Amino acid sequence: MITLDLILPDTRYPIHIGHGLLEQVDLLLPHLPLPKAAIVSNATVAPLYLSRLQQALEARGVACSSVVLPDGERHKDWQTLNLIFDALLSGNAERKTTLIALGGGVIGDMTGFASACYQRGAPFIQIPTTLLAQVDSSVGGKTAINHPQGKNMIGAFYQPKAVIADMDLLATLPDRELSAGLAEVIKYGLLGDAGFLAWLEANMAKLRARDGEALQYAVKRSCEMKAAIVSEDEKENGVRALLNLGHTFGHAIEAGLGYGAWLHGEAVAVGMILAAAASAELGWISRDDVERVRRLIAAAGLPVKAPSMPTEQWLSLMSHDKKVEAGTVRFVLLRSLGQAVIESGLDTALLDRILRENS
Amino acid sequence: MITLDLILPDTRYPIHIGHGLLEQVDLLLPHLPLPKAAIVSNATVAPLYLSRLQQALEARGVACSSVVLPDGERHKDWQTLNLIFDALLSGNAERKTTLIALGGGVIGDMTGFASACYQRGAPFIQIPTTLLAQVDSSVGGKTAINHPQGKNMIGAFYQPKAVIADMDLLATLPDRELSAGLAEVIKYGLLGDAGFLAWLEANMAKLRARDGEALQYAVKRSCEMKAAIVSEDEKENGVRALLNLGHTFGHAIEAGLGYGAWLHGEAVAVGMILAAAASAELGWISRDDVERVRRLIAAAGLPVKAPSMPTEQWLSLMSHDKKVEAGTVRFVLLRSLGQAVIESGLDTALLDRILRENS
Repeated sequence: MITLDLILPDTRYPIHIGHGLLEQVDLLLPHLPLPKAAIVSNATVAPLYLSRLQQALEARGVACSSVVLPDGERHKDWQTLNLIFDALLSGNAERKTTLIALGGGVIGDMTGFASACYQRGAPFIQIPTTLLAQVDSSVGGKTAINHPQGKNMIGAFYQPKAVIADMDLLATLPDRELSAGLAEVIKYGLLGDAGFLAWLEANMAKLRARDGEALQYAVKRSCEMKAAIVSEDEKENGVRALLNLGHTFGHAIEAGLGYGAWLHGEAVAVGMILAAAASAELGWISRDDVERVRRLIAAAGLPVKAPSMPTEQWLSLMSHDKKVEAGTVRFVLLRSLGQAVIESGLDTALLDRILRENS
Repeated sequence: MITLDLILPDTRYPIHIGHGLLEQVDLLLPHLPLPKAAIVSNATVAPLYLSRLQQALEARGVACSSVVLPDGERHKDWQTLNLIFDALLSGNAERKTTLIALGGGVIGDMTGFASACYQRGAPFIQIPTTLLAQVDSSVGGKTAINHPQGKNMIGAFYQPKAVIADMDLLATLPDRELSAGLAEVIKYGLLGDAGFLAWLEANMAKLRARDGEALQYAVKRSCEMKAAIVSEDEKENGVRALLNLGHTFGHAIEAGLGYGAWLHGEAVAVGMILAAAASAELGWISRDDVERVRRLIAAAGLPVKAPSMPTEQWLSLMSHDKKVEAGTVRFVLLRSLGQAVIESGLDTALLDRILRENS
């Protein structure tokens, strides 16, 4: 097991990465202010892992309830969030009852946001069960639900007390979900570590074959980079925005096609190709660089073509992006492969061109 | 105009108290990061004050939208909160668009919570239009909506950038609402300032006649006390709980009878009488003290008898209180008039006795 520490001005917490961690309740117990927990999971993950976690906690004297939500991005909404509150109140959960997110990014985001809001703030722990959640969404305290007009529009910055990334849980992950997680892994290479990008090119086959060591290294390197950026800029006033490489385009795809039609990682993958294409248009990277990005994304089993939407619809969807400032959409682009930057405003003609060329 | 400063570890903000402040946009402008604002008000307050505020802002170059919610505690729920998000997204509000709460406690709590959640945190300003909101709910950053099973169960600690308490707005306040606000004013005397309690006894007639000077003094003294307590304990880990004097009983009344049947201040008034009666049962204050509390509350035009509910219902409703810890309801009681303390757990027989004697 590897343990990273995410250090923030007001708090710090461990990210444990390893094998066979689900039932190692000793990793959880120090973070529970009361021996009371509520596990939030979904209908896909709960049959696989919920009772193992719950029994391990109960064996150590933790009173443990659970709530099982429907699975999928299209349920990341008020109605489903309310199911968590209903369950907490019906079970007399207190302000110091710890919520435990056992699932992928949707469960993590919703459990985190429910924790931020329940009695104005209850403790929570992330146990991500997808690669995407392990390398990205479970770390850093961004929590949210979607609004029909924009992804992750309603949420909070709210940090977990601990993150437990158990590689063994990835054994049951469908291939499509594994690929979606690899999109976020590739993101870290592209935005800040050309060496890691080269490592990913060399090891993509191992990762897709779920080689335990390769996965653990990819998760560790991703979490290290995320932790470094988040500890520098928790509330996204600056450098943290770089983590949104591919996300402005990606969120537009998700909202435009209806949440759940594409997986988040798939939308981000195509978003990164669009960001690379825009960077090439600006003369920052070469056409060969764009092709290198496209090849790696294809090798990860991800889509490389944007869905076909009118440019006006792209612009309208992107106008709700959280990085919009003073009416201008700000894009994360690539100065080089391994160095992302924020660019305010892209020419509509340029956008139109890259969207047509890549869909 | 008097200005108090609320100083917290991460921020500080002014509370301006005076006459004719609504259109003094100079008090607002320094707090807007962008010249963009969205005013949230309700169907009762908007016809009186919304266009005056909006025009004053627009005259200074602030692009200003508005959303008008239905009035009343029973609308302090998800559905109504979503109307704010719908309006913000439809109007392309950005992360740095400032929300302005123009209304009473319900509008302040909902606008604050919407600000805490919108794009994970937008700035907001409180312009309270009721006495209750001016002396209590607009100050200190507690924001929330209700859940059918408990008042203010879903919310956030989220501080405004400024509070503007304009005494002139109280001119249109119905008598019943004025009295409800006086309940929270009395609370400050009871919990921490015997001298202020005596001043209230001497000046209650003036306050009910809306004497401008008396009101301004009552608002100032209340805000001073609230600011001192909140700056000591922003997240309610200790002394801030004293501000909930009367609220554990009061919230049970509000939830038990259905939100809106009693005004919040009315429920708190009776809650304070119950807290005084319990304190007398414990031998901490005298029967005469209890009568003195009851007389002052009656003089403020407030109810002095609890609604009739079975003791089991009281206990069940209070079991959802946010001050519950390790299964025990913690009550705010009175060591003396002017000195509140937290007491863990009250004997059910004692509760049963005071509830029967006071309903």
